[in-house]
Amino acid sequence: MCDDDVYYFWPEKEDYEYLLKILDRTLIGGLGPTPDDLTKETAAKFFNQELVVHEESWKHIESYFSKSGRIMEGSNAKQAYFPKDAVVLPNPNGTAPGAILKKDQKIIVVLPGPPKEMKPMFINHVVPYLQQYSDTILVSKVLRIFGIGEGVMAEEISDIINGQSNPTVAPYAKERDVTLRITAKARDEEEAKKLIKPVEDKIRERLNDNIYGENDVTLEEVVAKMLVSNKLTIATAESCTGGLIAATLINYPGISEVFMEGAVTYSNDSKMKRLGVKADTLEKYGAVSEETAGEMAEGIAKNAGTRVGISTTGIAGPGGGSADKPVGLVYMGLHIDGNTLVRKFNFQGSRERIRQRATMNALDWLRRELIKKFNN
Amino acid sequence: MCDDDVYYFWPEKEDYEYLLKILDRTLIGGLGPTPDDLTKETAAKFFNQELVVHEESWKHIESYFSKSGRIMEGSNAKQAYFPKDAVVLPNPNGTAPGAILKKDQKIIVVLPGPPKEMKPMFINHVVPYLQQYSDTILVSKVLRIFGIGEGVMAEEISDIINGQSNPTVAPYAKERDVTLRITAKARDEEEAKKLIKPVEDKIRERLNDNIYGENDVTLEEVVAKMLVSNKLTIATAESCTGGLIAATLINYPGISEVFMEGAVTYSNDSKMKRLGVKADTLEKYGAVSEETAGEMAEGIAKNAGTRVGISTTGIAGPGGGSADKPVGLVYMGLHIDGNTLVRKFNFQGSRERIRQRATMNALDWLRRELIKKFNN
Repeated sequence: MCDDDVYYFWPEKEDYEYLLKILDRTLIGGLGPTPDDLTKETAAKFFNQELVVHEESWKHIESYFSKSGRIMEGSNAKQAYFPKDAVVLPNPNGTAPGAILKKDQKIIVVLPGPPKEMKPMFINHVVPYLQQYSDTILVSKVLRIFGIGEGVMAEEISDIINGQSNPTVAPYAKERDVTLRITAKARDEEEAKKLIKPVEDKIRERLNDNIYGENDVTLEEVVAKMLVSNKLTIATAESCTGGLIAATLINYPGISEVFMEGAVTYSNDSKMKRLGVKADTLEKYGAVSEETAGEMAEGIAKNAGTRVGISTTGIAGPGGGSADKPVGLVYMGLHIDGNTLVRKFNFQGSRERIRQRATMNALDWLRRELIKKFNN
Repeated sequence: MCDDDVYYFWPEKEDYEYLLKILDRTLIGGLGPTPDDLTKETAAKFFNQELVVHEESWKHIESYFSKSGRIMEGSNAKQAYFPKDAVVLPNPNGTAPGAILKKDQKIIVVLPGPPKEMKPMFINHVVPYLQQYSDTILVSKVLRIFGIGEGVMAEEISDIINGQSNPTVAPYAKERDVTLRITAKARDEEEAKKLIKPVEDKIRERLNDNIYGENDVTLEEVVAKMLVSNKLTIATAESCTGGLIAATLINYPGISEVFMEGAVTYSNDSKMKRLGVKADTLEKYGAVSEETAGEMAEGIAKNAGTRVGISTTGIAGPGGGSADKPVGLVYMGLHIDGNTLVRKFNFQGSRERIRQRATMNALDWLRRELIKKFNN
């Protein structure tokens, strides 16, 4: 059983609404190895279809286990059984394949529960399959925004949002950022793109550098690519974010060309020893201060021999705050080619959220400074 | 609008199934500041109720913005409007409060879309509210498991799972671990706990140290508490995980007592300079090797002056793999009080997944070694 059993989920709701109308039912979850995983069995029974071994899936599951040095258990074999006529959907991200079952005019789609397995399967296999039943297509382009909230953004372009029906423009507040989805309905992709282009141009003119990328790109990917293409070496010195900036940047596979070193300097001692922060600075201004943030950024760049150094020091909470320095207060330092900048932030929420927001804001700040420096 | 609009979500499905039977409808998402956020408005219209300002919510939203140094926009004010008789549900994790609307025997619950806002609101406010309509309660205890898969675990205790009806025992595969949920139906909590206890004992006897904790505890919290209670100082030296072990441990607020320093040593140069890995070792065995992992763990403990040092070095992919050293190969080193251990792992999946699995396995390894050392 998977705890995602009860999700009804698709990546961009409206895109698929018209497809789902012709879809009898999408069942998500319950494709696991345990006896209470009964989704596929139930769907097959509903269509009076028998389950037989699907060779390719069997091999996939077997190899999935052997690659991890484990043996395929009897219970996992269950995941390789499908009705003979089913369209089996491969799952590169787990052991449970999905399937499309069809009888007469009825279609049932069964998908694995974990979003990381289900989402790509839906996009790569279910949508193309269902498209055969439709004569218009929906094409979307997503603009990704950081640095302004959903409300402010929506107001700045409210005339564009309200003035459009094809394409439509829809703002979304996501966990890490804000997005604008421009969706055109057309006979083919080319026609859709022609509808999207002028609206996108207008939005870009208005929102400018607040737009950091398109579609599925991440902020760290954008920043990492700017660093790599400008051959700008970087090192990180983190206190309150505790390694999260380094870990996030390193999500990008090519980062090893420019990322040299990260330091998680949680204690005062390590701030002095690893980064050369002065004892005097720590005493006079405290570990959470502009001065310390600046010395941290400069120190890590110097010690690691990099052109860029970025630092964080703050109070992630829940304890440790004071009237002067409340929970959520974070100072960041950014050293680029000999210049050191410092910024102060106030974040809100849980410890995790404060650290997450600090990390994203550090990356966005770096992005904006790199744009200024390289005009790109 | 929020992209989670289409989620139907509750933390443990069966717990609430009986509550949801009496619930006319739960609407999730669409409580945002933009004009297309219409959930609350639609629900109120359905009940013929007018929206008025809810003072507390107004103040909450205002203070949320002012704390972030921003001003409450007109569009955000919309989030403070509710029907006069609605039970307004506070949202400590965002700007949009939820609400319970009731008319005659009908109830509509509206909740914000982002899971981090919606989930605690459902558990802390909606469930207690609905409990007034039921005369039995469901009490669950969750055992958290790491180190064996869902299939293997379910087989090891299949007799217990199948032999139970009250409490029920249900295995779940989660993103980061595997859980077993024991759920008893009873008139009160005490009676439920009495039903759960003997079944839990039997399971614990069978699964032993594979159970790392209960309910909402995280693996990092368990490990961090063991370190703190044993006054065991720690430092991390990460290559492929790139700061993720440090960042994960630092999720635990009390960690600063024992966590001294983390090094993200991505380049060979930094491995030698920061950790004292020998040039000879890197040349002879490579950066991704048992030998390097061992020297990294020992080196960071020595340099940071800690009793524990933990290290990772591996190939996170997607590039960089070879027949000899494939993508997913990770060596880890663990140095505790003068002894250095080394382990080899093979992970699968995306770069992100490999780094995530490596991080969790490093923490679990440390947990098991600490149990051996301290018998706790």
